[in-house]
Amino acid sequence: MQDWHGSRDSTPEGHDPDERWMRRALDLAARGPQVDPNPRVGCVVVSPQGEVVGEGWHRGAGTPHAEVAALESAGDAARGATAYVSLEPCAHTGRTGPCAQALHAAGVTRVVHAQTDPNPVAAGGADWLREHGVEVRGGVLAEEATALNRTWTHLATTGFPWVTWKLATTLDGRSAAADGTSRWITSEAARQDVHRLRSECGAVLVGTGTALTDDPYLTARRPDGSLMDVQPVRVVMGERDLPAGAHVLDDAAPTWHLRTRDPKQVLTALAEAGIHHVWLEGGPTIVAAFLAEGLVDEVVAYIAPVFLGRGRPSVGDLGITTIADALRLEPTDITLIGHDVRVTACLKESH
Amino acid sequence: MQDWHGSRDSTPEGHDPDERWMRRALDLAARGPQVDPNPRVGCVVVSPQGEVVGEGWHRGAGTPHAEVAALESAGDAARGATAYVSLEPCAHTGRTGPCAQALHAAGVTRVVHAQTDPNPVAAGGADWLREHGVEVRGGVLAEEATALNRTWTHLATTGFPWVTWKLATTLDGRSAAADGTSRWITSEAARQDVHRLRSECGAVLVGTGTALTDDPYLTARRPDGSLMDVQPVRVVMGERDLPAGAHVLDDAAPTWHLRTRDPKQVLTALAEAGIHHVWLEGGPTIVAAFLAEGLVDEVVAYIAPVFLGRGRPSVGDLGITTIADALRLEPTDITLIGHDVRVTACLKESH
Repeated sequence: MQDWHGSRDSTPEGHDPDERWMRRALDLAARGPQVDPNPRVGCVVVSPQGEVVGEGWHRGAGTPHAEVAALESAGDAARGATAYVSLEPCAHTGRTGPCAQALHAAGVTRVVHAQTDPNPVAAGGADWLREHGVEVRGGVLAEEATALNRTWTHLATTGFPWVTWKLATTLDGRSAAADGTSRWITSEAARQDVHRLRSECGAVLVGTGTALTDDPYLTARRPDGSLMDVQPVRVVMGERDLPAGAHVLDDAAPTWHLRTRDPKQVLTALAEAGIHHVWLEGGPTIVAAFLAEGLVDEVVAYIAPVFLGRGRPSVGDLGITTIADALRLEPTDITLIGHDVRVTACLKESH
Repeated sequence: MQDWHGSRDSTPEGHDPDERWMRRALDLAARGPQVDPNPRVGCVVVSPQGEVVGEGWHRGAGTPHAEVAALESAGDAARGATAYVSLEPCAHTGRTGPCAQALHAAGVTRVVHAQTDPNPVAAGGADWLREHGVEVRGGVLAEEATALNRTWTHLATTGFPWVTWKLATTLDGRSAAADGTSRWITSEAARQDVHRLRSECGAVLVGTGTALTDDPYLTARRPDGSLMDVQPVRVVMGERDLPAGAHVLDDAAPTWHLRTRDPKQVLTALAEAGIHHVWLEGGPTIVAAFLAEGLVDEVVAYIAPVFLGRGRPSVGDLGITTIADALRLEPTDITLIGHDVRVTACLKESH
């Protein structure tokens, strides 16, 4: 982030026309679906006279890539034009054919891209274009483009989905009172916020312990209780059986019961399904296992301004005995949600 | 707060000339010392032609009240003028003589005040003025004036100082690791913030347990370690003796050892000394005693984005066993201080 701000200072916004068009490409990219195996990409085709002749964005797996959509809307006007793409055009033949080739075939003579494709299977588009006589400039607003596809990029570079751990706790670190009651510690507004964030993830993950004890639905619902349009896959990990009547097994959303306690096995299975963002909802044993393997990337903690004095600790034993070994995070956002404080923080390794 | 915003809407700022001058009086009041037995008061004397002819503010116990200071600067020009005072002029003879009488004697014909004096000994100034033919308007920007002297007003109305409990905790509610280490959970910036807030209080309070275990200085220091100009009284409560070499007994600031475990006895002693704001720094037993008696008015919690998993709980047993009995607070401010989140919240009863 620091570096990028630095580079922007040296070429203030508006002075570099490539940045101006790339910003438009990023706006288009953001229209794409957040929950999709593919990244969100936007493309703007600009004539040598500086006019937009085509625009497109990727609407999700199985639909045309952004470049193809933009070229279609440009038609013959693409000849001699510059294409601004928020991600390096792909060089591989997937369901839609390589975009590098499509740009060249359409007569585009210059390609400006933001993020370089981190996916080794798809990468190489820039090189291919150069080899075919197309001028290429990469890295324009690359930080912004990468941030837009943060979780997809994480999967592409690490092989594991980005894991956001959701924690709800009192100010004194309790998740339930001494008698086990916990409804509700956080406010209605915080619980609605959880539903919204769940719907932005590919999967919601709990252990069999939570599924058996709390019998949660794990769906993303609106304040009126109705289901949101996009539902994450509900994933229950662990070896115990779930009763047939468990809420998580209803038909509101797909549910996968992965019969393993190994976080890596779970994340690998989710990665293979194209899921790049996992919303981890506990409980303490599962969370400790993910933390121990360095597989939690971010925490979203809802801190209720409530004291209980004693009761169930919100976080289980992490094997930490002294302050020097404490697990330290970097806050990226603090927001008051209703009466609760939402702290978003990244684990230092993932930052 | 709601009511006041409502009344301001009906007389927008600037439309009511009394509000304009009262805002000036409040600005002057804020120049006064925060740590003082007396409230912070400002006064503006305005001629019938709408010109400021005198200004004054109270600089602390033993110096002239704001009205007297303003009348002195106005001289003869006070005759026929309006005096704007952020607190109802006093009617009692303290070290400085009653201000109501001074205003009348100077020829002031109209007095506008903000907060009504909550102190039964000093109150009655408005009535006295009316009885002597002076026009009086009260309650102008009263909420703002009261907020400026929030802790003094609390003492005047309840007989107890306002108690701010300072809490430092990990995100999972720990104040030390399993082996007892706790330096440092919060960041340097958060610890500096504590020193700044200490210096705005009349007393810093701990129990003998904390004094004996942690051997703290409890002074208000600058980042370079030097002592700030204003030091709170260091108060240690409890029956155990302190060793002669205890840091809290050094000559950096006065220290009172109150040999009682009763929060009310401690607060009464501090109230008698004119202390209206106490900074409570623990430990768990003392805090639980204050909470149990409803004597904590506000919490300033520094939440470090750190997990320990286990270790010393940041809050001791409060006798709460079920969620319905949880102690609930109202956040008034959230701020990122260094890497830590500072949450300021009022206990509902005090709100």
